[in-house]
Amino acid sequence: MGKDSKISIGLLGLGTIGSQVARVLLEQVDRMAQQVGRPVVLCRVAEIDQAKAQTSAVPAALITANAEELLTSPDVDIVLELIGGEHPALDYLTTAISQHKHVVTANKELMAKHGPTLISLAKRNEVHLLYEASVGGGIPIIGPLQKDLQANRITSIRAIINGTTNYILTRMSQEGLDFGTALSEAQASGYAEAHPSNDIEGFDAVYKLAILATLAFHTDVRVADIFREGISRLEARDFQYAKELGYAIKLLALARYKDDNLSLRVHPALVPQEDLIAKVDGVFNAIEINGDLVGPVLFHGQGAGPSPTCSAVVGDVLEIARGIVSGGSLIGLGAVKRNLHISPIEKLTSRYYMRLTVADRAGVLGQIANKLGTQDISIASVIQKNTNAVDQTAEIVVTTHPAAEAAMQEALAQLDGLDVLREVGNLIRIEGWS
Amino acid sequence: MGKDSKISIGLLGLGTIGSQVARVLLEQVDRMAQQVGRPVVLCRVAEIDQAKAQTSAVPAALITANAEELLTSPDVDIVLELIGGEHPALDYLTTAISQHKHVVTANKELMAKHGPTLISLAKRNEVHLLYEASVGGGIPIIGPLQKDLQANRITSIRAIINGTTNYILTRMSQEGLDFGTALSEAQASGYAEAHPSNDIEGFDAVYKLAILATLAFHTDVRVADIFREGISRLEARDFQYAKELGYAIKLLALARYKDDNLSLRVHPALVPQEDLIAKVDGVFNAIEINGDLVGPVLFHGQGAGPSPTCSAVVGDVLEIARGIVSGGSLIGLGAVKRNLHISPIEKLTSRYYMRLTVADRAGVLGQIANKLGTQDISIASVIQKNTNAVDQTAEIVVTTHPAAEAAMQEALAQLDGLDVLREVGNLIRIEGWS
Repeated sequence: MGKDSKISIGLLGLGTIGSQVARVLLEQVDRMAQQVGRPVVLCRVAEIDQAKAQTSAVPAALITANAEELLTSPDVDIVLELIGGEHPALDYLTTAISQHKHVVTANKELMAKHGPTLISLAKRNEVHLLYEASVGGGIPIIGPLQKDLQANRITSIRAIINGTTNYILTRMSQEGLDFGTALSEAQASGYAEAHPSNDIEGFDAVYKLAILATLAFHTDVRVADIFREGISRLEARDFQYAKELGYAIKLLALARYKDDNLSLRVHPALVPQEDLIAKVDGVFNAIEINGDLVGPVLFHGQGAGPSPTCSAVVGDVLEIARGIVSGGSLIGLGAVKRNLHISPIEKLTSRYYMRLTVADRAGVLGQIANKLGTQDISIASVIQKNTNAVDQTAEIVVTTHPAAEAAMQEALAQLDGLDVLREVGNLIRIEGWS
Repeated sequence: MGKDSKISIGLLGLGTIGSQVARVLLEQVDRMAQQVGRPVVLCRVAEIDQAKAQTSAVPAALITANAEELLTSPDVDIVLELIGGEHPALDYLTTAISQHKHVVTANKELMAKHGPTLISLAKRNEVHLLYEASVGGGIPIIGPLQKDLQANRITSIRAIINGTTNYILTRMSQEGLDFGTALSEAQASGYAEAHPSNDIEGFDAVYKLAILATLAFHTDVRVADIFREGISRLEARDFQYAKELGYAIKLLALARYKDDNLSLRVHPALVPQEDLIAKVDGVFNAIEINGDLVGPVLFHGQGAGPSPTCSAVVGDVLEIARGIVSGGSLIGLGAVKRNLHISPIEKLTSRYYMRLTVADRAGVLGQIANKLGTQDISIASVIQKNTNAVDQTAEIVVTTHPAAEAAMQEALAQLDGLDVLREVGNLIRIEGWS
């Protein structure tokens, strides 16, 4: 490739993200040439859906229905994968990299499941594989972890990285909605999908945490390594009680490295209200990284949507284009490899919030405290909430001091045997930095 | 330099930052070699103060009192300037760059006053000049602005970038302290210097804003372009009244690009309490960048201190070391150059908070409203505060709708002529994103 020849981009997928990226690449062609020192040109777009192809801003002459043609074209220098999902994206990227093309992807599922393999393949083929848009939309987080924070030993990650669930939890908290109503409302507003389980059950957050933890801890984190619990069991009164106790409820993605063990979890958690991450509302995302030198650093912004995602994708394109022009070879990034032990959830130590429905009679609390006590779980606070005169039950909310997860699970099984216990309404972990 | 030869670092200055950087470079030598693919070695340290040299962890054999020796040594690949201040740092860096050495600096005053000149010199000499630590301590912000966010047209910056003043304001707000007491306390705790005017009067924030705005808007911002007002006129009751009105008071660094005009300011401001930046407390910093694609992105962390600063400095060292190993030439970054018009403070449109001491008699508010009205300033709210029976005065707090700064200054001059006005206690601008 000549010194003044253009850098050509092939784009896979004209969905909402792809269309926006195409529009920006077409509009900003002069600005990008200035930034890079050579023309950066969108030269080919693959989209199988003719309706999408026709409604987009991309000239029809650039569009093909045949992705393979784009992937093997000698004219394409950088392939952007904006299809999403595992298949056929995996085949497409594998082909592109094997054809010595640089690749940019926004695909969290793909990077969570096949990131280490694809990165190795890219290194062997001496091409770049960038994926800033796969976590946190336009929030710079992959770049800072790979570069700006590289002097640190990362000790923990605490993140709100799913906008759909954060929107639902914010509505439940602020408006007292129940889960079903908040979900329906999010679906009506376009913030949740018709089949929402990928978000609601925490899979999306798990993918993103796998990507972040793999980078931060220099170890290959697999999706199956991450404990996962969704938000569908939360009730309006959990938010009300949490608020009374001084907490917000957030779906957190957590990674913590301590004593040679890496603990990885996605679950709802009580977060102290004065904590900045408790104030991340609506569809915003926030990622807090704790490093041995830098301390806690928080990155906050819109975690999804065509424009923020486009900011990250085009940023990656410009970085690769500069790399092509500067002629630097690819070394170093991710060179440190460790094989950390993943700690199972049973080994967790946490504080807990429990909401219990019990028989409304004297001595009940003593029985519960006894069962917890035999498991070395000590109670931090108890509040009695609503009493139901009809079925003679009361609701009590218990918070505990730090306890072992395994002990807590055993205690729950034993509580289940008490005739005064009607129901364990919810068990939610409490998370601060400590 | 051979492919396996080491990369050698020369360090200028063994103050608190320099000592910490030296310690980390010495301790992490194996880890850095892994990350970079070649040994990265601290080979020379210049410190003129013998006491500092003796108490540091650096072997005496590495230390020289002669900076010139280090700067001209053919063995040094990367020079770290951690002396601070304008002189002799400017001469030192100029020499280092002219000797084709890469440089890393944490020096905000130097970069604010001479950044564009030094960057040009570095380009001509084909060396890197990195300065992540000059703004926001360890918070990644220079890197994200140069790389991750480069697809955006930046529209505004809103930042808390001076930890000393933020600590003082937080104490005034939370404890009701007056300015003098809060300052003394900050000095006693080591958060403020004995001669604090560099922080208190906003110079430090101006330096950092000049660096950020130069990068974000691709234009050479000079220190003199930035309107500056310090925090010493704030009183305990301003915090109390602001709180009643729903605001926090923060020293903000602001840059806004609109209608081909760049407005640049550092001054105390009322910020809505629900705004995330209002919740940045103590010595923490936060920088909010607004881009046309990404929307608002906020970066939050410890803005000073040896460890966070060291995180940024060593991060820069590792990036340059990788650049040396990869053999890439230096292009692109900062290639876009514009020459934006800087809008003077008189052209600002803002909402205002005014605290006035007036004669405690009927019709006073009417007279004040009239004077404001003749300048097209309309009142948003008025609250009457303390009345002083002895001198028969009252204190009133007025907030305005958006008004022109020039009109507000003229109105203040006219109010001064009213015999019912005893004193303008304070005038503080109100800042939201709008």
